[in-house]
Amino acid sequence: MSKLRVNCFSLSLDGFGAGAGQDADNPLGVGGMALHQWIVPTRTFQKALGEGEGTTGPDDDFAARGFENIGAWILGRNMFGPVRGGWPDDSWKGWWGKNPPYHKDVFVLTHHARKPIEMEGGTTFHFVTDGIHSALNKARASAKGQDVRLGGGVNAIRQYLEAGLVDEMHLAVSPDLLGAGEHLLGGLNLPALGYERTEYVNTLSAAHYILAKKRARPWS
Amino acid sequence: MSKLRVNCFSLSLDGFGAGAGQDADNPLGVGGMALHQWIVPTRTFQKALGEGEGTTGPDDDFAARGFENIGAWILGRNMFGPVRGGWPDDSWKGWWGKNPPYHKDVFVLTHHARKPIEMEGGTTFHFVTDGIHSALNKARASAKGQDVRLGGGVNAIRQYLEAGLVDEMHLAVSPDLLGAGEHLLGGLNLPALGYERTEYVNTLSAAHYILAKKRARPWS
Repeated sequence: MSKLRVNCFSLSLDGFGAGAGQDADNPLGVGGMALHQWIVPTRTFQKALGEGEGTTGPDDDFAARGFENIGAWILGRNMFGPVRGGWPDDSWKGWWGKNPPYHKDVFVLTHHARKPIEMEGGTTFHFVTDGIHSALNKARASAKGQDVRLGGGVNAIRQYLEAGLVDEMHLAVSPDLLGAGEHLLGGLNLPALGYERTEYVNTLSAAHYILAKKRARPWS
Repeated sequence: MSKLRVNCFSLSLDGFGAGAGQDADNPLGVGGMALHQWIVPTRTFQKALGEGEGTTGPDDDFAARGFENIGAWILGRNMFGPVRGGWPDDSWKGWWGKNPPYHKDVFVLTHHARKPIEMEGGTTFHFVTDGIHSALNKARASAKGQDVRLGGGVNAIRQYLEAGLVDEMHLAVSPDLLGAGEHLLGGLNLPALGYERTEYVNTLSAAHYILAKKRARPWS
């Protein structure tokens, strides 16, 4: 069964997934880059950039798991870019340059229609205007039995959690305070939505948690 | 300089310091006991109970630090007990039996006056009705140069944080989801209140963070 997965989603210790004031100069909001210091040095991340060798160990293991068995991606509009409202033209093609690190179909949630954009390296951005269920159906069809990765941001993940559609979520809590920004879990009751914590691994850089939908247990 | 310190304050991974529905049967709210599993087995905790030897290591180190150089305590009313509103009589004397684990003066924040209660083992509960600053002044006078420990609960800690009066706070984040209850940091901007994270240590049972007031730096 194809899962909808969140992987490598970084939070501050006070629960923010991005800083305040996201714009073209601060794609992760003010202070948001600090949350990702656990993943930047890893081999998986460095290879994705085409740069150095990078580190191995539990942080890299989590980074690598995030790319295993992924057949398609879903991104929120703000994760795709800083443009708000209607698309003024076709010039914005994501934060990632000509060859984005997805190499799959990427379904971008938006209220504003736009033609697909085929990038180098196998990434095609599709713009979905009819809601999160439709985006998931399209991504599942594209993934052909593999899992779908929900890349963020906070708002998109919250919508899928509230709908109970996320099967598994890996959160990496960085030991940093942001103070303001987009809070991932505020007001969400994860146990009531059917989630439990199934793994806990910590490193010098982050505390890693896997949350997953509770399975029906034959003895309960 | 005598500090106001929070130590060993346990949070769920979704940020709750206590579960919902606190009452005489659930002093920590429903599910709240899970947050404290990191400290219960430690030598410090077990000795405080007068029971077995207990474990040593980083969890115990943090537990022990919580009792070092403490001259007095402050507790919120709900930390002292489940009674709400006026005191119906003098029968409630805390959750901890005849010999509470404080062994110092303990200043309980309340809107309802009550005479001090002298317990066995050196603990005296004093009831402070004129606010958090008054309680801190009284506790500092009693501590005679040692630090004051703010034991909780969530509401009392939030009031002291908002007033910028907490000098140092140790949070122990347990790998458990509560989903509902009392959220410690919701709506508080700790960096804006002058706090930074100064230590991060993790164990198999908890991720430990020390937050402290930023010091003026001569070079900044």
